[in-house]
Amino acid sequence: MTDRHYEFAAVILAAGKGTRMKSTLHKVLHPVAGRAMLEHLMASVERLGPARQVCVVGAGREQIEAAVEGRADTVLQEPQLGTGHAVQQAQESLTGFTGDVLVLYGDVPFVRAETMRAMLERLHQDDAPKAVVLGFEPDDPLQYGRVIADAEGRIAKMVEYKDANDDERGCPVCNSGLLAARAEDLFALLDRVGNDNAQGEFYLPDIVNIAIADGDTCAVISADSADEVRGINSRGELAEAERVWQEHARKEAMAEGATLRAPETVFFSYDTKLGRDVVIEPNVVFGPGVTVADGARIKAFSHLEGADVGEGAQVGPYARLRPGAVLKKDSFVGNFVEMKKAVLGEGAKASHLTYLGDAEVGAGANIGAGTITCNYDGYFKYKTVIGERAFIGSNSSLIAPVKIGADAIVAAGSAVSRDVADGELRMVRAEQFVKPGWADRFHDTMKKKKAAEAKG
Amino acid sequence: MTDRHYEFAAVILAAGKGTRMKSTLHKVLHPVAGRAMLEHLMASVERLGPARQVCVVGAGREQIEAAVEGRADTVLQEPQLGTGHAVQQAQESLTGFTGDVLVLYGDVPFVRAETMRAMLERLHQDDAPKAVVLGFEPDDPLQYGRVIADAEGRIAKMVEYKDANDDERGCPVCNSGLLAARAEDLFALLDRVGNDNAQGEFYLPDIVNIAIADGDTCAVISADSADEVRGINSRGELAEAERVWQEHARKEAMAEGATLRAPETVFFSYDTKLGRDVVIEPNVVFGPGVTVADGARIKAFSHLEGADVGEGAQVGPYARLRPGAVLKKDSFVGNFVEMKKAVLGEGAKASHLTYLGDAEVGAGANIGAGTITCNYDGYFKYKTVIGERAFIGSNSSLIAPVKIGADAIVAAGSAVSRDVADGELRMVRAEQFVKPGWADRFHDTMKKKKAAEAKG
Amino acid sequence: MTDRHYEFAAVILAAGKGTRMKSTLHKVLHPVAGRAMLEHLMASVERLGPARQVCVVGAGREQIEAAVEGRADTVLQEPQLGTGHAVQQAQESLTGFTGDVLVLYGDVPFVRAETMRAMLERLHQDDAPKAVVLGFEPDDPLQYGRVIADAEGRIAKMVEYKDANDDERGCPVCNSGLLAARAEDLFALLDRVGNDNAQGEFYLPDIVNIAIADGDTCAVISADSADEVRGINSRGELAEAERVWQEHARKEAMAEGATLRAPETVFFSYDTKLGRDVVIEPNVVFGPGVTVADGARIKAFSHLEGADVGEGAQVGPYARLRPGAVLKKDSFVGNFVEMKKAVLGEGAKASHLTYLGDAEVGAGANIGAGTITCNYDGYFKYKTVIGERAFIGSNSSLIAPVKIGADAIVAAGSAVSRDVADGELRMVRAEQFVKPGWADRFHDTMKKKKAAEAKG
Repeated sequence: MTDRHYEFAAVILAAGKGTRMKSTLHKVLHPVAGRAMLEHLMASVERLGPARQVCVVGAGREQIEAAVEGRADTVLQEPQLGTGHAVQQAQESLTGFTGDVLVLYGDVPFVRAETMRAMLERLHQDDAPKAVVLGFEPDDPLQYGRVIADAEGRIAKMVEYKDANDDERGCPVCNSGLLAARAEDLFALLDRVGNDNAQGEFYLPDIVNIAIADGDTCAVISADSADEVRGINSRGELAEAERVWQEHARKEAMAEGATLRAPETVFFSYDTKLGRDVVIEPNVVFGPGVTVADGARIKAFSHLEGADVGEGAQVGPYARLRPGAVLKKDSFVGNFVEMKKAVLGEGAKASHLTYLGDAEVGAGANIGAGTITCNYDGYFKYKTVIGERAFIGSNSSLIAPVKIGADAIVAAGSAVSRDVADGELRMVRAEQFVKPGWADRFHDTMKKKKAAEAKG
Repeated sequence: MTDRHYEFAAVILAAGKGTRMKSTLHKVLHPVAGRAMLEHLMASVERLGPARQVCVVGAGREQIEAAVEGRADTVLQEPQLGTGHAVQQAQESLTGFTGDVLVLYGDVPFVRAETMRAMLERLHQDDAPKAVVLGFEPDDPLQYGRVIADAEGRIAKMVEYKDANDDERGCPVCNSGLLAARAEDLFALLDRVGNDNAQGEFYLPDIVNIAIADGDTCAVISADSADEVRGINSRGELAEAERVWQEHARKEAMAEGATLRAPETVFFSYDTKLGRDVVIEPNVVFGPGVTVADGARIKAFSHLEGADVGEGAQVGPYARLRPGAVLKKDSFVGNFVEMKKAVLGEGAKASHLTYLGDAEVGAGANIGAGTITCNYDGYFKYKTVIGERAFIGSNSSLIAPVKIGADAIVAAGSAVSRDVADGELRMVRAEQFVKPGWADRFHDTMKKKKAAEAKG
Repeated sequence: MTDRHYEFAAVILAAGKGTRMKSTLHKVLHPVAGRAMLEHLMASVERLGPARQVCVVGAGREQIEAAVEGRADTVLQEPQLGTGHAVQQAQESLTGFTGDVLVLYGDVPFVRAETMRAMLERLHQDDAPKAVVLGFEPDDPLQYGRVIADAEGRIAKMVEYKDANDDERGCPVCNSGLLAARAEDLFALLDRVGNDNAQGEFYLPDIVNIAIADGDTCAVISADSADEVRGINSRGELAEAERVWQEHARKEAMAEGATLRAPETVFFSYDTKLGRDVVIEPNVVFGPGVTVADGARIKAFSHLEGADVGEGAQVGPYARLRPGAVLKKDSFVGNFVEMKKAVLGEGAKASHLTYLGDAEVGAGANIGAGTITCNYDGYFKYKTVIGERAFIGSNSSLIAPVKIGADAIVAAGSAVSRDVADGELRMVRAEQFVKPGWADRFHDTMKKKKAAEAKG
């Protein structure tokens, strides 16, 4: 992304209600790979350093406004009279802006920054097109509009499928709807678009045919793949987009040197980072914000989000790492263990049935099965600090705030509410009452009761 | 299902041993989507209000008898001399019955009630067919028998694949084996079926050719899809039927407004009910009897059966809800938590490593990590009642029967066997013994022992 | 495998660095189905009773040497001048050996013993071929070299794809690279192979053309399927090999009488053994060394390795069985339970949130939720023995070494460090402190503090 930069504004159309989603959540805010569609799109735009971003909104505008606050303007399209009309709503917001405009769609979230840049670059080539259209070549072109162009991508005609003749229908290049144009050209052309069609709508692609009729050049460039301009209008399409995204991510992870024993069962987030020789067993889910260093192993049925897994660390099976979990080198988190805002020192172990919240565990410490950090009193959270090489006996409750010293030992079953000094043993142990024969008598009584009840 | 009703009896053939299943469980009792094949079929029959149901059984008859007791008669086919012979065994059981008979197969469980009704309706149309055959059009017709018919579905000929000429083999409509006929016609025709064939068996479809030879009309109607008449004879086919069923259920769930991030990893039961804007993360298994209300979120690796999840509730990851688990609005069940016959009040939380069995938890209560309701003494189960806004400290054992009052607090690590009043603190805490330097001395001793052992 | 035996040596080429794996682990040591590729291959070789095994190694030789120590010689190929050159490196190691040589590849691990034997047998047929080549017929032959042969498999020509004419390219039989020859023929022919080609390498298949030019016969036999000679050079190919292996194993398990509700979510190891009427729910992972007896049920999200599951036992959901877990007949291990080196007696139950390590549990015993065997003191492991029908109350800590008698009862929440006699009740229970109104006062104070903090 170090090539020549063009000043540009992104106009993102997001006024569609998304009725087919059957959701109270705005369509473009539904997540793929742990991130809202709109965020995927804006992240790509932002890699190119846009001068401005404008979202054209309709129903559910409050949701979009909250999502883009401080990053993009929102303008209302009401009523909704077509894509050309939608882009026109951004004109006032772009008053005084003299750069390029890139028209994008909130529900077409996977357009790559490279493709956007290529559209802008094409706009500035010597043949100076008035508009650059993003085309794509689907496996099955269905009833998409076609972009009829020469070998240099200079457009002869944009044609709707229903108006196309057989030759035109044979053209493999379809119109994605994405378009780049200089701001002044765009709005001048949009003023000339009519709505003399079945829907009575103002269509953005019409500006291309108008410019061509003026004798101006318009150009098409092609998307990397049809997946790049995949639109998402239903939960089925959302799931399909997730599938395509995950398949790509899995292949990339393997190509970079991670082993995925059963790739189809591993789910990444948009920002998952894996080192070399990381091994991921079947059925692992990565939420946002996870980094896994070289040589770490993530065992089956693990769930990670916001976690930093150090070199050679071992996680799971059935480990749940929540935001703020930090595993230092060669540390070990075993089954049915949850960590949240907790640091596990180098070589330290929490092997079973444990909750570590708001905790710091020193290097080489051993956290016994069933250990719970009691970090919450219903109102505030408190911290537990465990020293290096400390040994926490099983089924202990560490009532924070509390500090366990280095090399200290907490006996099994202890509820520890006061600090334990270095090298000290803390044992919270009540008397062991013994009632010889009691259990035998209890069994007799209960068996009779059971029998009586059965007769009952 | 409110259209015109015809009096009918269902004869369900289930005498086949199912040898290829290699199972002690009768073939038709193997479950798909959490329900025995036979139950799927009978549930569809029962939507149409049958006058009678008769199961024709052979090996494993006791299993079938136990499964259908009170709902269907069973008659024994012994020896087993073909499908025609099987249906004849039901004649005595249907003595005096004058309505229609629908012949079904226990191992063809997914025939829809709509299709069954369409067969019965066809029987009563003006051309008064003697028999109505259910046809289907598989992608690959393989060696199925063909149903040669005109455009109105009037059958010219039923023909086995091996006896068919090329024209007949080109006919896409295959015989599913399902058939409807008036009782008197059916049994009269069956009496005329011979067994002059390679297997020496009496074949049900032969009645169609006999009726046609008599100059009577027989008709074919088509199944919705080949999946509808899919037969299940091996564990491989069982798994394939489950896959087809699940794919259909997932699509339907998404179409109705649920998000399935990875649909292929979500397994529904035949009766799962989901509200709108329910989000289901990867790897979730629904057993029978689950209802999930609007806006609830089921996180990864959750397992639900017999559970009622309220509006906006959050479940998992790694939550196990067993029969009788009721989550009220906005309640929260986190990781490694099991609930059984337990109600979690509005906004109440059980976030980690907890077992709630035979319990009622009041609104807004907070159940700490590692809390166990001790509901069983080896003989009987007892109840735990927790008041509104109560706070149960981590690693507590609530020894039922026990009642914790509203706003009460149980200190971490307590084993509570007596009721706690409203607003009371209950703390079961033994003395904390301290042995300064003890751990250091222990480490020294053990390191020496380890070293000695290593030398050995 | 009882047919005639030929004395043979296996020469396994494993000198390739495996750069595309991007791994510090040698390519042939990456596992498929829980076993290193090289181990899969050597296990097949060893079923045939080889006289010798020689691994030709290069980079990462130490890893291979450690892996095959005592089973195979290793010889160094340095520099690496082609497959012919690689095989030559084994000559010294085979000095005095007069049998057959089978040339195999460490990264082609799934060649079946039956196929290897067929190669050797072909070598000893009456036409006495100088070399036997293993061919295969891929769906898409791509740019593989072709083996041009007559109907009896007598080779006319081995031809590289780039040198092949259209007729030759139309030949479906490709060269897998595997080859068998008598030791003396092999090394004599290899001495005559030149490196007059683009890469300047000595190619093993050249010996075939040399022998043919001598007027000798060479033969080709065909692999069972292209999967059998699938090579693995990247993590993507590793995952694909795993997928193919698992699909085969799942089909076989179902054919043998196990129910896999969702076969695509079950992962076996190379040595998993299942009885009849075993039911496996979705999402189950088998590590090495698992045996499951007839009628056992493995519920969703279970993870088993080195475990022995008895007849009718029930496991999971979310059960983790580690090496040494033995479940006797009709025993029950429920959710969030881990077992390691632990025997659960007939009909005994450990239903929830439990860790059983180094333990013996008697028949009919009941282990309450949250029970932990404290088997480790940071230095040594100790054993817990629980008697028949004993009842361990919830949240108990059994501090090993410790013995709980038959019919004994341990009260909930007890930390037991001394033996409990048969029929005895052990209760470790501290005083229950009550502070009436304390919680109410606490709530008031904290709410004020929260409010003050919120104001800031």
